Amino acid sequence: MTAQIDPFHAIALSRRAQELKAQGRSIIAMHFGQPSTGAPPAAIAAAHHMLDTDPMGYSENEALKARICQHTRETHGVTLTPEQIILTAGASPALVLALATLFAPGARIALARPGYVAYRNTLKALHMIPQEIPCGPQVRYQLTAAALAALDPAPQGVIIASPANPTGTIIPADELKAIAEVCQARGIAVISDEIYHGLHFEHPAASIAAHMPEALIINSFSKYWSMVGWRLGWLAVPEALIEPARARMGNLFLTPPSLSQAAALVAMDCTSDLEAHRATYARNRALLLEALPSLGLTEIAPPDGAFYLYANVAHLTSDSQALAHQILEDTGVALAPGRDFDPENGHKYLRFSFAVSTTEVEDAIARLRVWLAQHAAGKPSMSG
Amino acid sequence: MTAQIDPFHAIALSRRAQELKAQGRSIIAMHFGQPSTGAPPAAIAAAHHMLDTDPMGYSENEALKARICQHTRETHGVTLTPEQIILTAGASPALVLALATLFAPGARIALARPGYVAYRNTLKALHMIPQEIPCGPQVRYQLTAAALAALDPAPQGVIIASPANPTGTIIPADELKAIAEVCQARGIAVISDEIYHGLHFEHPAASIAAHMPEALIINSFSKYWSMVGWRLGWLAVPEALIEPARARMGNLFLTPPSLSQAAALVAMDCTSDLEAHRATYARNRALLLEALPSLGLTEIAPPDGAFYLYANVAHLTSDSQALAHQILEDTGVALAPGRDFDPENGHKYLRFSFAVSTTEVEDAIARLRVWLAQHAAGKPSMSG
Repeated sequence: MTAQIDPFHAIALSRRAQELKAQGRSIIAMHFGQPSTGAPPAAIAAAHHMLDTDPMGYSENEALKARICQHTRETHGVTLTPEQIILTAGASPALVLALATLFAPGARIALARPGYVAYRNTLKALHMIPQEIPCGPQVRYQLTAAALAALDPAPQGVIIASPANPTGTIIPADELKAIAEVCQARGIAVISDEIYHGLHFEHPAASIAAHMPEALIINSFSKYWSMVGWRLGWLAVPEALIEPARARMGNLFLTPPSLSQAAALVAMDCTSDLEAHRATYARNRALLLEALPSLGLTEIAPPDGAFYLYANVAHLTSDSQALAHQILEDTGVALAPGRDFDPENGHKYLRFSFAVSTTEVEDAIARLRVWLAQHAAGKPSMSG
Repeated sequence: MTAQIDPFHAIALSRRAQELKAQGRSIIAMHFGQPSTGAPPAAIAAAHHMLDTDPMGYSENEALKARICQHTRETHGVTLTPEQIILTAGASPALVLALATLFAPGARIALARPGYVAYRNTLKALHMIPQEIPCGPQVRYQLTAAALAALDPAPQGVIIASPANPTGTIIPADELKAIAEVCQARGIAVISDEIYHGLHFEHPAASIAAHMPEALIINSFSKYWSMVGWRLGWLAVPEALIEPARARMGNLFLTPPSLSQAAALVAMDCTSDLEAHRATYARNRALLLEALPSLGLTEIAPPDGAFYLYANVAHLTSDSQALAHQILEDTGVALAPGRDFDPENGHKYLRFSFAVSTTEVEDAIARLRVWLAQHAAGKPSMSG
């Protein structure tokens, strides 16, 4: 029997948003986790050049792998060899690759709830068993060393994510070290999804690679580097797994897009463009953090990084998916219902993605202020 | 326990070819299955335009899906809806998607030997069981309805490939119909890899979709459309599997490259460019078919399509991998050893990929003629 996998609930909302936009409605797209900015101009120029000069066969850009090693060294003080970097068509196949390299069907893999929907579903699609650990406000919605130490029996693996989707919370450096120690002591293999690294608003996120060279690290050019549709990411593997991981890459996926590799190499040096995006996200975050409590949204996960705000809306609805659709219809603001991220409690939450322009965030706040005022003033409550 | 997956043996040869090229040697790259031509100019122009006008988020090009349906209708008289077309980052993830949608770990899947190495390895990586059926010259190296009818018990599925890699042989239309009937009668799910469709030299290849609407069809823009490094393909699924297949796509892979989708839409109308490539392959094939027997290579699979010649070299070596390396060192001609395609008998075969220029094919023949004459004249025989 193949596994039952849920589609993304946000897709129905996204389709409706597209329909409304096609009808001429003003839509503010804060439902998907993607920068609206596009790749840095110099990366686009590199792509134009390659289009004109290279027939683009199957390729693995050695310079990009070396540049990623340089980045890892400069950012985290971790030294990797280019052979340890496996370029993939985004973080998604990097996760498939990591799971298929480390685990067999039946393996139990711990992960935080709430968490990115595809962790759970990809595990299920590969006939592995997601062991979801409820993580509430008291642990900043994140896995802890204590939670991993308490699992009996120990799971074969764990997926950690810091900054996290949907909350944006970062695991503090000392806690990350403690997680590494517990996992080493208990023989728990670690996959660390570091796709939102670079996007932080107080302290940068640490990498578990600094404490645990045997961890597998996922990253992508879709978030900090603002190259979503280019579909490029990477998996960093320990020396001992280079051969099995590369064999799986070659067979399951062959190579990632050639053009994206050339453009990403240039993007990695476009610091001023990328830091300007981060400054925009910081402004957007500050605006939302100031406004949302005044709109009655007071339980918000601490948005340490990424570009997400995960807010409790249980006082407004018992079904945040219906609420999201109603808000979309009435205001044009598209928000992601929490159900994708948390099958147990997600119906109480909405996720705001603030990787849009500051003008759009201001507009969204104004629209929500009016709408919520009307609904707080005795309008019928939302239901499915 | 995770599965033991072999890396591609051709990769070591490819690396050596790159080293020799970097040293200034003249290398004729006939080892990898990729057109050397690049995308049609109009497709490249479309890519330039998109780079300048679109920030490229996660996207699924609806017009491309509709265009693929038109192509399927025009080519095979098969009517599909755009929802049945799932765009993927190449044929490789399309196969992963097909297998994960149809089968659970432990499923036994029949396939021809020789065959494309990644079929066997991807099955193993997903903990499915490849059931290889030896297919020799008497069945034109292809699966037959009789062979599938004779399997006891029936496998859960079969992967068919026509035109095939490494042989280029096409399953005749009536045999394909008979295969469909056996599979329907025995409940064998069919995945048909049609990645080399469009590349034929006598009769076009039929699609099993015409006889078996429940079959899953894999295709790609890497071969006929000459867009290798763009990483774009598709999986066509029956109505009943749209939901589980799309749920797996969204979770395991998200979306394929946006730029490639826009360019591929244009490429599908670039018939004159693409037919010119096919004419080049036809010339190259004719040159090789004329020359190889005079070089002593007389057992060659009938190259009905694709751009491959699979030739028995057992009179020259007991280890075609060592032979391929020796030929590369001595002549600069890179050929693929058969071992990737056939773990049992591949050591007797070499695969020639003739998706290069006609000048290169002529040059390769000339170099091989000299080399083989020397080795037939009593030079020491090859060994590892």
